[in-house]
Amino acid sequence: MSSLTSVLARLDADFDKSLERLFDLLRLKSISTDTAFKPDCRKAAEWLVADLSSIGFEASLRETPGHPMVVAHYRKAHDAPHVLFYGHYDVQPVDPLELWKTPPFEPRVEEAADGSKRIVARGAADDKGQLLTFVEAARAFLAETGSLPLNVTILLEGEEESGSPSLVPFLEATKKELSADVALICDTSMWNATTPAITTMLRGLVGEEIVITCADRDLHSGLYGGASWNPIRVLTSILGDLHDETGRVVLPGFYDGVSDISPDVKANWDRLDFDETAFLGGVGLKTPAGEAGRTVLEQLWARPTAEINGISGGYTGEGFKTVLPSKASAKVSFRLVVGQNPDRIRASFRKFVEDRLPPDARVEFHAHGGGPGLKISDENPALKKALGALTDEWTQEAAVIGGGGSIPIVGLFKDILGMDSLLIGFGLDDDRIHSPNEKYEMESFRRGQRSWARIIAALADKA
Amino acid sequence: MSSLTSVLARLDADFDKSLERLFDLLRLKSISTDTAFKPDCRKAAEWLVADLSSIGFEASLRETPGHPMVVAHYRKAHDAPHVLFYGHYDVQPVDPLELWKTPPFEPRVEEAADGSKRIVARGAADDKGQLLTFVEAARAFLAETGSLPLNVTILLEGEEESGSPSLVPFLEATKKELSADVALICDTSMWNATTPAITTMLRGLVGEEIVITCADRDLHSGLYGGASWNPIRVLTSILGDLHDETGRVVLPGFYDGVSDISPDVKANWDRLDFDETAFLGGVGLKTPAGEAGRTVLEQLWARPTAEINGISGGYTGEGFKTVLPSKASAKVSFRLVVGQNPDRIRASFRKFVEDRLPPDARVEFHAHGGGPGLKISDENPALKKALGALTDEWTQEAAVIGGGGSIPIVGLFKDILGMDSLLIGFGLDDDRIHSPNEKYEMESFRRGQRSWARIIAALADKA
Repeated sequence: MSSLTSVLARLDADFDKSLERLFDLLRLKSISTDTAFKPDCRKAAEWLVADLSSIGFEASLRETPGHPMVVAHYRKAHDAPHVLFYGHYDVQPVDPLELWKTPPFEPRVEEAADGSKRIVARGAADDKGQLLTFVEAARAFLAETGSLPLNVTILLEGEEESGSPSLVPFLEATKKELSADVALICDTSMWNATTPAITTMLRGLVGEEIVITCADRDLHSGLYGGASWNPIRVLTSILGDLHDETGRVVLPGFYDGVSDISPDVKANWDRLDFDETAFLGGVGLKTPAGEAGRTVLEQLWARPTAEINGISGGYTGEGFKTVLPSKASAKVSFRLVVGQNPDRIRASFRKFVEDRLPPDARVEFHAHGGGPGLKISDENPALKKALGALTDEWTQEAAVIGGGGSIPIVGLFKDILGMDSLLIGFGLDDDRIHSPNEKYEMESFRRGQRSWARIIAALADKA
Repeated sequence: MSSLTSVLARLDADFDKSLERLFDLLRLKSISTDTAFKPDCRKAAEWLVADLSSIGFEASLRETPGHPMVVAHYRKAHDAPHVLFYGHYDVQPVDPLELWKTPPFEPRVEEAADGSKRIVARGAADDKGQLLTFVEAARAFLAETGSLPLNVTILLEGEEESGSPSLVPFLEATKKELSADVALICDTSMWNATTPAITTMLRGLVGEEIVITCADRDLHSGLYGGASWNPIRVLTSILGDLHDETGRVVLPGFYDGVSDISPDVKANWDRLDFDETAFLGGVGLKTPAGEAGRTVLEQLWARPTAEINGISGGYTGEGFKTVLPSKASAKVSFRLVVGQNPDRIRASFRKFVEDRLPPDARVEFHAHGGGPGLKISDENPALKKALGALTDEWTQEAAVIGGGGSIPIVGLFKDILGMDSLLIGFGLDDDRIHSPNEKYEMESFRRGQRSWARIIAALADKA
């Protein structure tokens, strides 16, 4: 019997005890955004330090100005690869409490209509159940074989649900200690209940607020209308030209560095059999709004966008006022894909606006955030091994998916620690994270543990 | 001595008494919008009925659901023309009271730095001082000659400053009684302190609110951005195309029926020596925004416009939210000139929007007001006579001017009573109507009376 086979057998045999451990952790009310729960957050960190120490990690609690970090190391695999595993032990608030069927910090197992079981509690899926899938896999390896085949560093954050104020300084201070060959992040979802997935593409963002000013006061259109510049006219005229008729963004240089997805990824996405009609129909839409000739998944994951997220000017209350306002403003964002440079996109947008201003209009720009799109190379060996391991466990080809938004931790690991991240999680879209009656599928918890055991073995494999 | 000469002499001789009468009227606190002043409004109406009766009119107070109307007739001029004179006896509220140098209903004469005098009180210019210029002229004619050379009906409203709720039903009920050859309205300003003016063009208005809906809920641009229609993009794209590069409105048929001003009017306007730079500079602007090749006065008075008076959608608070809103809306108005049909303009705009909607966008339209532009023919004989009379009095050629906004009474007289109106007033732009320390120039009051005497004589002249 190979060591992986025996580790998997031990995970199965030990499953009930792993569930008890998860319940212990779920009982701790580690709501990071509410200072009333500061002692509970600390208890959760201490619980994890104790548990990781008990299975053979050098684990410690690290103070921050906010909630503590948990850092644990296993460094005995010598010339084997080194992975950094990331999860977070803090949870969302529980309001509105009255919508919970049972108290959020009294975990229970619920049987669904189809006979499947799920764990119900705040944090079950986000992220305590998920992070323990990895810890349980490590525990089984250590218990069954006396060692881990990889060098493993574990970083568990306590402020993920409250804006991660301590994260950047902490990563900068521990850069050397935490840097590894690849990061494994367990905080995402599967493609569906039977198809595991690794998120390999995340879009970046450039946010810009623009304020156009014409006259130095609001004017009455009866007295000034026709002769005086109206900043709403200027704004709509400029923003109305951001897209061409095919849905492409017309900013000069906008698509510089943007590549089409590879044939492999395209084939993988085609196999997902994504139901565009159902996706758009779910929000009352029918036709994709993005670039002509691109699938909806490409438009969401692999293509950059320009969106007006807010616009405001003049009289917007009940009824009508024939005002010519002095100012009008808009919030515009660009979702970026890998290859696009956020600074260049911002500069191109500002020039696009300035070039179109009539002489009497002035513009102010306010930058709101900016970060590049991220993508793991399709040829990344760790990615290929992890996909194989997931496919083996779930007996269904693992999906390579994208995310339309950004996940800040991935950018920080890239920028500060110089590492790519594999986003591998076992949540489902209906887990109700951040909502009442959050749940985590029992199968997610069970096969998540087995998946990590297989991934650890695969990443250790020198082949 | 001609009767006009003796009437003018009598006006001069009687001027101090006319000022006392104005002061009596100004002491009545006829604030129509505040029900606390309902008895004061009635007192003002009664004062006018008594005064008009005393000089030879058949005057009466007419009840309405709101404040009473004053109607007075002089019908003894047999085959002479019949004019309807309109003014209003109600006034604006006086807040903020603390900004008045003296109590608003204690009229006084103030000497300006240049030695000129002005009457300071609420209603001095708007409209008690103005309406009495006509009454004083009639009084002098009747006192001096025993008759008026015209048949005269006087209509004095008590709800002009509170939306005129009773006006339309009253005009409809008294249509036969009030209809005359021409209406004379004394509620406007001169071109400047030395140049009298008749307003002969008023722009109409079509107001439209449009609401664009795409998805049936607000979406997150990280999850849906690129594939889902954004109603702000739809709205800016459509409204941004309303004008071409020369400032013309591109709605099909928009300029149908629009004529250039006549050479006579053009010459009159050129003589006004309007300072475009000062006008735009006064509100922080430099270049006219309207159609290329048109003067600012044309853009304000003689050309139609399309303006976005309000726009709203998505997140408009502090900071940034990457929302794709479900709805976005705008308030759009068109100032119309004579010859344009408001219904056709509204229909053309709606079609323009509908033709440009992508399949997933829906639009709702809400009509807000609509009325045509108005213009007195340059060849109108009453206009020519009145201009001559004003020129004689002020020894400066009277200006034929336009108004960029609408004055509802003019449209009502046209629609309900079938009459054109001559807008002749002696206010100045700095009279602070609706503001603290409202004033009316003593010269406006004195020469306004003399102007009306000349106009009455001119209109009676069969030549």
